[in-house]
Amino acid sequence: MNPLYAEMPTTIFEAMSALARELGAVNLGQGFPDARGPDAVIEAAVTALREGSNQYPPMAGMAELRRAVADHYRRHQQVDLDWASEVTVTSGATEALAAAIFALVRPGDEVLLFQPMYDAYLPLVLRAGGVPRFARLAPPDWRIDAAMLDQAFTPRTRLVIINNPVNPSASLFDAESLALLAERVIAHDAIVISDEVWEHLVFDGRQHIPLMRLPGMRDRTVKIGSAGKIFSLTGWKVGWMCAAPPLTRVIAKAHQFLTFTTPPNLQAAAAFGLAMADDYFTAMRDHYARSRDRLARGLLDAGYAVLPSAGTYFLSIDLPASGISADDVTFAELAVREAGVATIPVSAFYAEDAVRGVVRLCFAKQDETIDAGIARMKIAR
Amino acid sequence: MNPLYAEMPTTIFEAMSALARELGAVNLGQGFPDARGPDAVIEAAVTALREGSNQYPPMAGMAELRRAVADHYRRHQQVDLDWASEVTVTSGATEALAAAIFALVRPGDEVLLFQPMYDAYLPLVLRAGGVPRFARLAPPDWRIDAAMLDQAFTPRTRLVIINNPVNPSASLFDAESLALLAERVIAHDAIVISDEVWEHLVFDGRQHIPLMRLPGMRDRTVKIGSAGKIFSLTGWKVGWMCAAPPLTRVIAKAHQFLTFTTPPNLQAAAAFGLAMADDYFTAMRDHYARSRDRLARGLLDAGYAVLPSAGTYFLSIDLPASGISADDVTFAELAVREAGVATIPVSAFYAEDAVRGVVRLCFAKQDETIDAGIARMKIAR
Ligand SMILES: CSCCC(=O)C(=O)O
Ligand SMILES: CSCCC(=O)C(=O)O
Repeated sequence: MNPLYAEMPTTIFEAMSALARELGAVNLGQGFPDARGPDAVIEAAVTALREGSNQYPPMAGMAELRRAVADHYRRHQQVDLDWASEVTVTSGATEALAAAIFALVRPGDEVLLFQPMYDAYLPLVLRAGGVPRFARLAPPDWRIDAAMLDQAFTPRTRLVIINNPVNPSASLFDAESLALLAERVIAHDAIVISDEVWEHLVFDGRQHIPLMRLPGMRDRTVKIGSAGKIFSLTGWKVGWMCAAPPLTRVIAKAHQFLTFTTPPNLQAAAAFGLAMADDYFTAMRDHYARSRDRLARGLLDAGYAVLPSAGTYFLSIDLPASGISADDVTFAELAVREAGVATIPVSAFYAEDAVRGVVRLCFAKQDETIDAGIARMKIAR
Repeated sequence: MNPLYAEMPTTIFEAMSALARELGAVNLGQGFPDARGPDAVIEAAVTALREGSNQYPPMAGMAELRRAVADHYRRHQQVDLDWASEVTVTSGATEALAAAIFALVRPGDEVLLFQPMYDAYLPLVLRAGGVPRFARLAPPDWRIDAAMLDQAFTPRTRLVIINNPVNPSASLFDAESLALLAERVIAHDAIVISDEVWEHLVFDGRQHIPLMRLPGMRDRTVKIGSAGKIFSLTGWKVGWMCAAPPLTRVIAKAHQFLTFTTPPNLQAAAAFGLAMADDYFTAMRDHYARSRDRLARGLLDAGYAVLPSAGTYFLSIDLPASGISADDVTFAELAVREAGVATIPVSAFYAEDAVRGVVRLCFAKQDETIDAGIARMKIAR
């Protein structure tokens, strides 16, 4: 057996959700909405199930979805993609990450990761034979700075993995941070996997900047997106990766032997959804911003120091600033077991030198769930 | 970039299907049915889409599907599995293969592969750092023998990958072949990934023997199954792996970072399907056996030597015995370009020392498609 997996714990999201189910806790841990998702998109999947093909679609994805992805980014992000040579459909963003990492890393290549990092990145890099190096972001502003990059980049840096907007910190990299990064990436002739699954979940009029749009980055970026996140249908597992043809050719080969392809009816429905009018995306953002505000207000009233949330499904509390001396893991353990509310300790997103006093909560929930969560959080302090 | 993928061609199945689409050829290449699939199973997916959750199901799969897999194998194959600790749902059998290979191979481990082999096996073994060794099966009977195993096993053999029934040879390993293999596996303290996706597609009253049922193999076997193959819905990409708890614990970790989970509505529909009465499975087998016979008869009438097909969606023709001197690749190229029928050259399933005169055809097609294919095959000679 491979020791990497033999010694690995179950992901914190799954472990917390299992604990929440077992204990009947309010689940503000794992990032998924508890609402239904848009009926029109679900009905598009029903129609495709009944009337479309249920056999293998093309390995790179159905033309209608690849076209819809390219059109969508042109319309919403001023990113120009050739659907046929630059868009590959995957079975969720996790599969896109796996395919891109297995395709781009040669054993011994250094891979730069920004902590806090989504929990799939490091195991995939290690399994691919990569040598991880870490840059460390910290509250309250989770910014990239030049010194951090100068320390993290080396002559062997081949790949950088970045998440923007960032889960769990709910921060958004500004143009300056991205420009600093792009400069180093270009100087090192490296490639970036830009995990932009939260691209539509950006609040208060802020703008998500796709890394591809930075000068010199168009052909060095693998942009990853997720229909599950865009349409609040996290179980669908439809994602995609967008990259210049020479990168797409190689990552599509890795994809071919990970899942080969993705259910056609869900692809058709995602294509339908991406073409919906701007209203949908605006309403979705407004809806989640209201949920964020509801949770933040409730936590403030309960005496918690709440960190700002510029995007994603998440906000965090700062334990020391809330007058709580427990570390994040202890707090989250007690909160689920004794107060009945599941949260995620942010130290779980660090491989080394973890930030210790921050706990993440998911606000992508119906008002009743948020209110129940707030009531439990009152007990947790 | 990783040179393994940078230098890899697109899979032959995809390449042939693309060529068939482009040229308007009858597609008897890639293995997928051109019929609709069972309405009851499709409607179960519709109901689950509308009424069930579309959010992340548990990482190991929904309890209802894992239970249904265990019940199904108890009923149909006398294999006893504990659903909660021994069954993991994956996004198709390809993902199950990837997860099992990444989890079980340590760099430097020898992995024994039987040629002809399904095209995902070797790249996955190489990407996992495994050292492949090959045993070679050949027509007409594609059997395993003791000498072949003595040559292929070494003290460093840690893993064996076997497919039964075998794609592309359409053969079924008998009890004696499997016992020979099991003896070596046990003696070498190795593990077997047993790709049994064709388990229900076994004709003429033959019995598929699950490798797990052989003495000493219960806890050394990872059994892989596929809802797509069982229900003629190859696009659904719902599969599973079954293994003793210590193996399941490790391969589930690899699965967690490949796709994490699989669409819940398709899982629910697969659970419904697995519980259908025996009639469904008998009728499905009879249906495909009739299709096999139709294609075989047509090819015989056209002067081809047809090799026996004991199972799968496939049968093969023997070119030399048909009086054709072209090798399989040349024949398949000409057949698709000049006669308008896509087939698969069986040499594509070998990494070395390929069998050269055998071409595979898929009979999982409606009668009209089969008849059109036969007409084109008449032109191809
Ligand atoms: C794949 S489970 C994790 C969901 C998620 O994005 C999160 O909770 O961070
Ligand atoms: C995943 S495409 C290959 C389908 C198949 O099993 C075959 O044609 O052999």
